[in-house]
Amino acid sequence: MDVVNLEAKLATFAEHFQPRTVGEFNGHDLMVAKLQGPFRWHAHDDTDDFFLVLKGRLTIELRDRTVSLGPGELFVVPRGVEHRPVAEEEVHLLLIERTGTPNTGDPATAAPRRVI
Amino acid sequence: MDVVNLEAKLATFAEHFQPRTVGEFNGHDLMVAKLQGPFRWHAHDDTDDFFLVLKGRLTIELRDRTVSLGPGELFVVPRGVEHRPVAEEEVHLLLIERTGTPNTGDPATAAPRRVI
Repeated sequence: MDVVNLEAKLATFAEHFQPRTVGEFNGHDLMVAKLQGPFRWHAHDDTDDFFLVLKGRLTIELRDRTVSLGPGELFVVPRGVEHRPVAEEEVHLLLIERTGTPNTGDPATAAPRRVI
Repeated sequence: MDVVNLEAKLATFAEHFQPRTVGEFNGHDLMVAKLQGPFRWHAHDDTDDFFLVLKGRLTIELRDRTVSLGPGELFVVPRGVEHRPVAEEEVHLLLIERTGTPNTGDPATAAPRRVI
């Protein structure tokens, strides 16, 4: 593996809600993603969901509360917990999930795995 | 789990090479650490080692090469690979390892696990 510059990786694509895998770690994908607007409500039964905001402000709606993350702030959505990320303005993220996790919680609607 | 502000967590301690656990993720500790000077050569047989530099510049010596990481850059040392982190000036890190991993590779010399 090489050193990964997160900003440089994020500069290589523009699509929202299409995470790119930039490395692997203990059976997990290390991904960068750009988000804008509301995503869908979903849960991952087999993995916690790691969010670290690099740019912008991300709201994560949970069924019982809402959290808000700015740059340099991280949050872990526990496995099985329904959540909906919402980005009022474009957000850049480091995202970590088990390799093979569908980003929508459903393989039928998930973004394809793309390694960059 | 609450939102974790990495800078705020780093501001709560001064010791070098004494990682603090700020969250958990799929059986891993999410840790912040301050490094200054050279660490020891070591390896972790049971876990990859995730480094994301938040401040400063970190050199990671491997037996066959040396990598250098600035802010916003990450590197994964694969399990079993000997490495020696060296920080010429103070470095702030996000570090991820399986919960229970001794930071030196050896339980006898490892920093105690501290959750903040």
